[in-house]
Parts: sequence; structure tokens; C-alpha cells
Amino acid sequence: MKAKIDLETVRAFCDRCPFNRWLGLTIVEIGDNWLRMTMPWKTDLLSSPELQLVHGGVLASLIDSACGYAAALVAGHTVPTVDLVTDYHKAAVPGPLEARAEVIRAGRSLITARAEVRDCEGNLVASGRIVAFGARANNLGGKVPPPA
Amino acid sequence: MKAKIDLETVRAFCDRCPFNRWLGLTIVEIGDNWLRMTMPWKTDLLSSPELQLVHGGVLASLIDSACGYAAALVAGHTVPTVDLVTDYHKAAVPGPLEARAEVIRAGRSLITARAEVRDCEGNLVASGRIVAFGARANNLGGKVPPPA
Amino acid sequence: MKAKIDLETVRAFCDRCPFNRWLGLTIVEIGDNWLRMTMPWKTDLLSSPELQLVHGGVLASLIDSACGYAAALVAGHTVPTVDLVTDYHKAAVPGPLEARAEVIRAGRSLITARAEVRDCEGNLVASGRIVAFGARANNLGGKVPPPA
Amino acid sequence: MKAKIDLETVRAFCDRCPFNRWLGLTIVEIGDNWLRMTMPWKTDLLSSPELQLVHGGVLASLIDSACGYAAALVAGHTVPTVDLVTDYHKAAVPGPLEARAEVIRAGRSLITARAEVRDCEGNLVASGRIVAFGARANNLGGKVPPPA
Repeated sequence: MKAKIDLETVRAFCDRCPFNRWLGLTIVEIGDNWLRMTMPWKTDLLSSPELQLVHGGVLASLIDSACGYAAALVAGHTVPTVDLVTDYHKAAVPGPLEARAEVIRAGRSLITARAEVRDCEGNLVASGRIVAFGARANNLGGKVPPPA
Repeated sequence: MKAKIDLETVRAFCDRCPFNRWLGLTIVEIGDNWLRMTMPWKTDLLSSPELQLVHGGVLASLIDSACGYAAALVAGHTVPTVDLVTDYHKAAVPGPLEARAEVIRAGRSLITARAEVRDCEGNLVASGRIVAFGARANNLGGKVPPPA
Repeated sequence: MKAKIDLETVRAFCDRCPFNRWLGLTIVEIGDNWLRMTMPWKTDLLSSPELQLVHGGVLASLIDSACGYAAALVAGHTVPTVDLVTDYHKAAVPGPLEARAEVIRAGRSLITARAEVRDCEGNLVASGRIVAFGARANNLGGKVPPPA
Repeated sequence: MKAKIDLETVRAFCDRCPFNRWLGLTIVEIGDNWLRMTMPWKTDLLSSPELQLVHGGVLASLIDSACGYAAALVAGHTVPTVDLVTDYHKAAVPGPLEARAEVIRAGRSLITARAEVRDCEGNLVASGRIVAFGARANNLGGKVPPPA
């Protein structure tokens, strides 16, 4: 596998997404089939202010985005997620989170990517994977269709 | 199964969560082991402004919250999610989304709940399930611990 | 949704599969988008002879087959599984197991079906779902291709 | 993480399981938190004799067993699976399959392990993960209870 797009292009994909901007997601490094993405800590992302726990949906969002853009590196365009699995392992220490995502299989129509999320002390907070629809929708004028 | 908490109590659980407040999640109806929850449409929730697609992580968040509070009805307290599966079926028509979640199994330590998300025209947009840790953490002074 | 094949046809799909025959899977009833399938108890299916626990892989196989043939009803042909999720709820009482599977979404290319497995006393033993590739592979002379 | 049991002990766990014996599963190598397991090819494991496709449930069984015994290395005893996710990537070339499983997180009560399955040419055929209940059931006289 060899990345079909460069860091600037995949960052532009990420930045034009309103929810990613709200989360503060930043792609910091890419390889042929992987990337690293960071997310800053903020109170609005918590499920419990007392326990300082990040909402499970926020961690799922980080995994979905990190895996989705890793898949985009391989596909050359953004890809819609078919399904997402998220495993929660440990409460994060308050501070920026980092996801590392990599494509483990790119088939003719489907791409599978997995990610690990670590807190600022390096603890594994969550992990997961997506299956994405990787075939380009040529007949939609370049628009990416919903998954099914 | 018989709900151990009432609508007012489970709503209070939901409302004290900053990310749920930001999403605008509202529990509108409960039964013994199920609930209905709504989420308003807003631009910040989109992954693509052109295609008006809700971010996959937002739908995962809605499923996690709906299932988590359905599990809370049965457990009598909030429960940490162990893992979350989200399936994406169709792009939503712009407008409020509704999740219906139900507990399908409550064991001694784990609770499984599933949910369906529909758009304002009744289309099935996403579905999923959580496994949650249902045992109360008595030795933590009522605080709910992270999953593992 | 309306079943495109009849009971005899879907049974023939199931019966020509060697592993299904070894498991003893039998489709006992179908509807437009659902079916019921039974599996007899036998010692070779256990993970623990002392505890009389059915192997998790056997329950996953039952869910995969039940969901797969439910999807075949809707597709009109057999479909390869893209991914499979299985949740384990309770040890089965020794005796025949029954799975009920239903298609919850059939899109242009992907089909999602879910199933519940109950033991001979009606206890929920396991549940799960598959995503299957539903598009027929016309260019393969009617052969069903691997998922990706 | 440091393996609490040796190769002979974990092999004995695997071999006393009737379904594993029928599948022909063999643990060939272990590390502190990982193992390699092989499964021979045989006709009874196929879903399609014409296409020589291994049944999805068989691959799920291999992943469940490989991950489960990897978790047993860390726990020091066998562990019941809470849930299992299997992704199917490619049809296997006929011949023995090999799974490599590793524990990625061992918490106080839950263990997460993932596995990759490759065919005799090294192709990635399937991947997946389990969450298992890792706490020993002391009050059951050493018997491992069902998951919930």
C-alpha cells in the first residue's frame, strides 16, 4: 500500500468537516497506510465532570475519524464508514489524546482500519476498528455516497 | 425487568453530562427496560456540509447514550460502557433524530442494550449495541469506575 | 421486503454447506425477511465437557448462518459475510438451540441482519448481527465472491 | 504482562475442549501475552465445496479460541468470552490456517485480545477481537462461570 494523497490533502478533508473542527482533531503525521491524530481535552467532551471521564461517543468519534482518514490515504478520497467497533479500556488522564490508525486490509470494495487511542501518559484508553466502503462513486460526480 | 429509576432521575443523569448537553440529547419517554431519546439537527454535527451527512461519531454517541441510559434504568445507576458497535445504514434527512434503545440482557455483572436511530421521516439511519458494566462499585462511594 | 426465494431453496443453500451439515443446522420456518433455524446439542460442540458450555465459536457459527440465510431470502442468492458480532449472555441448558434471524436493513450493496439464540427453555443464550455483501457478482458466472 | 501459565498448561486447556479437538486447533508457540495457533484444512470446515471457502463461523471459532487462550496466559486460567467481533477479508488458499493472538489490555475484570488469521501463503484472511471476563470465580470452586 502506498498513500495516494499527501498530508495537506488529508488534512483538508478533516478540516472541512464541522464536527471534526468542533472536536479539534488534527492529523499530525501520515505514512503509507497509517496516521496519527490528536484531540485536545475540553470540558464539553466529558460524560462526567466529577470523574473527568471522556464521553464514550467522543472516543468513538476519534476512532472513526482516525480510521476513516487512514482509509482515505489508501483510497485516495474520503470513504463512508460501514460499521464501527469501539472498546473502552481505561479512563484517560486529563490532557490531549492521540489516536494512531492503520489500514489492515484494502479490498476491491471494502477497507478495514484499526486504531488505538492513548492519553498524554501513554495509557491505552480505547481501541477499535472501522469497515469503510472504499470504492469511489464515479456516477455521483465525485460525491461520496452513504454506506448502503 | 422493572425500571429502578424514574424519568426525572434518568433525565438528570443525562443532563449533567456536558457532551450530551452539547449534542442536545433529550430522553422523551421511558419503559421498564427501554427509552426514546431525541437529538436536534445542527451544522456542527455534520461530517460533510455539502452532503449534509451526520458524522458517524455523532450517531455512535447517540447510540452509546441511548443504550447507556436504558441500561441505567435496569441497573438503577449510570453504567460505564465496555464496548460499542455502530452500523451505518442510510444518510439521514435533515431534521431531528430519534433513538429507541432497549436492554436485551441484564446479567450479574454485564448489561447488553441495543438501539435503532431513525430520522424525521422514519428511515433507519443507524443501529448498534453496547455492553455495559452493570455492577455497582460500592467500594468507590457510589462513583462509577471506568470499565476495566 | 419480500422473500425472493422459498423455503426449499434456502434450505438447499444451507444443506450444501459441509460445516452446516456437520453442525446439524436446519431452517424450520421463513418469512419475508426472517427465519428460524435449529441446531441439535452434541458433545463435539462443547468448550467444556464438565460445565456443558457450548463453544463460543459454535454460537457465532449459528448466528452467522442464521443471519446469512435471512439475508439470502432478501437478496435471492447466498451472500458473503463482511463482519460478524456475537454477544454471549448465558450458558445454555443442554438441548437443541434455536436462532431467529431477521434482516433489519437491505441497501444497494450491503445487508444487515441480526439474530437471537435461545436454548430449549427459552433463555437468551447469545445474540449478534452480520453485515453481508448483498450485490450479486454477475461477472463471476453466478459465483459468490469473497467479501473484499 | 508476564504469562502466568506455560505452553503445556495452555495446550491442555485447549485440548480438553471437544470442539477445539474436532477443529484440530494446536497452540504452537506462546509469549507473555500472545500465542500462535494452527488449524488444519478439512472439507467439513467449508461453507462452499465449489468455492473452497472456509465457513465464517469456523474463522470466528479460530479467533475466539486464539484470543481466549492468549487471555488465559495473562489471567492464569481459562476465561469466558463476553463478545467476539470477526472481520472477513479474503478467501483462504486451501491449506492450514494460522492465527496470531495478543492481549492488548488486561483490566481488573475484563481482558481484550485481538487476532489475525493468515492462510498458508501469508494472506490476511480474517481478523477480530474478543472481550473476555478475566476475574477468577473463586466462589465457584475454580469453575469458570458463563459471562453474565
